[in-house]
Amino acid sequence: MPKLWNETIEEHRRAVRDTVLDTTAVLVTERGLRSVTMSKIAEESGIGRATLYKYFPDVESIMTAWHEEQVAGHLRELAALRDGTGSAGERLRAVLEAFALIQQRRHGHGPELGALLHRGDHVAGADQHLHRFLSELLAEGVRAGDIRDDVSPDELATYSLHALAAAGVLPSKAAARRLVSVTLAGLRPTTAE
Amino acid sequence: MPKLWNETIEEHRRAVRDTVLDTTAVLVTERGLRSVTMSKIAEESGIGRATLYKYFPDVESIMTAWHEEQVAGHLRELAALRDGTGSAGERLRAVLEAFALIQQRRHGHGPELGALLHRGDHVAGADQHLHRFLSELLAEGVRAGDIRDDVSPDELATYSLHALAAAGVLPSKAAARRLVSVTLAGLRPTTAE
Repeated sequence: MPKLWNETIEEHRRAVRDTVLDTTAVLVTERGLRSVTMSKIAEESGIGRATLYKYFPDVESIMTAWHEEQVAGHLRELAALRDGTGSAGERLRAVLEAFALIQQRRHGHGPELGALLHRGDHVAGADQHLHRFLSELLAEGVRAGDIRDDVSPDELATYSLHALAAAGVLPSKAAARRLVSVTLAGLRPTTAE
Repeated sequence: MPKLWNETIEEHRRAVRDTVLDTTAVLVTERGLRSVTMSKIAEESGIGRATLYKYFPDVESIMTAWHEEQVAGHLRELAALRDGTGSAGERLRAVLEAFALIQQRRHGHGPELGALLHRGDHVAGADQHLHRFLSELLAEGVRAGDIRDDVSPDELATYSLHALAAAGVLPSKAAARRLVSVTLAGLRPTTAE
């Protein structure tokens, strides 16, 4: 039964990979990037150094892979909220609020890790994906009359993503929610100023 | 007349310093940070290498000094608009628009230079200064009834600075102005949502 055997191999590989990613993320968060070595990761993951090197060449590549999985998870979370129940306006608020809270958690990484992770090409890809995702949701809001139509959904998405990034420096979830309300107020249809 | 003599010395020093800063900024913009050397800066500034090293130890310190002067100039520009004529609301719009256009120009530095410059402690200081500056202006707007009072001026300043940073990725001045309108709409007093 070669298929089952392949599935088992695949599962095993995934389990090793997940363990390495999780262990590394914890180590880096606790000790800072510079003090985490491949040996330490192997030791804490409970796998051999030689095995570890079959999966990843260095600590940076592990952190990049970890970050890719984080970003993919965030996009799935936001997509689930977008596809949930409620009016376009309610779903937009839910997506923006979730995004703001993600920004707030992300900020816990610290600037050193942030600088490393945001150098990667995969981040530009994720940012584009998020931007397109939000543009489409805003275009839907325009059609429903919830969102202003005097500025393109594309520019409104750029505004929203930057404004909500402010959640990273806000001290509480309540403050992040107020930020979402302020950001949404900017997106509402306006009469002439 | 030692006073005049000192003034002349002081003026001369300032002139050398300004020349070095301007020359370096042009070289870095044209060629990228990595290909600019102290020798090249001395040559292009028309001063001796030994003299240059009396002013600055390396290229990074020149770029930091250049950036400090840029930031100080921006703060002076924004303060002049704040202290100009017009209602609190008009002056706030003028300040936000100027800030958005500064963000747009700054983006021309490119990511490499941005990362270098934004590592410095002086940037944290400038950011705090700008944040306080904007908080005060927003508090004035609250008193005038132009700005919402259900979120603190402090949090509104954080929102504004992040939202307007989006100008850095917008393609035109017209788009930057639309961004200012959207950002301002978020700051306006609201009836309950």
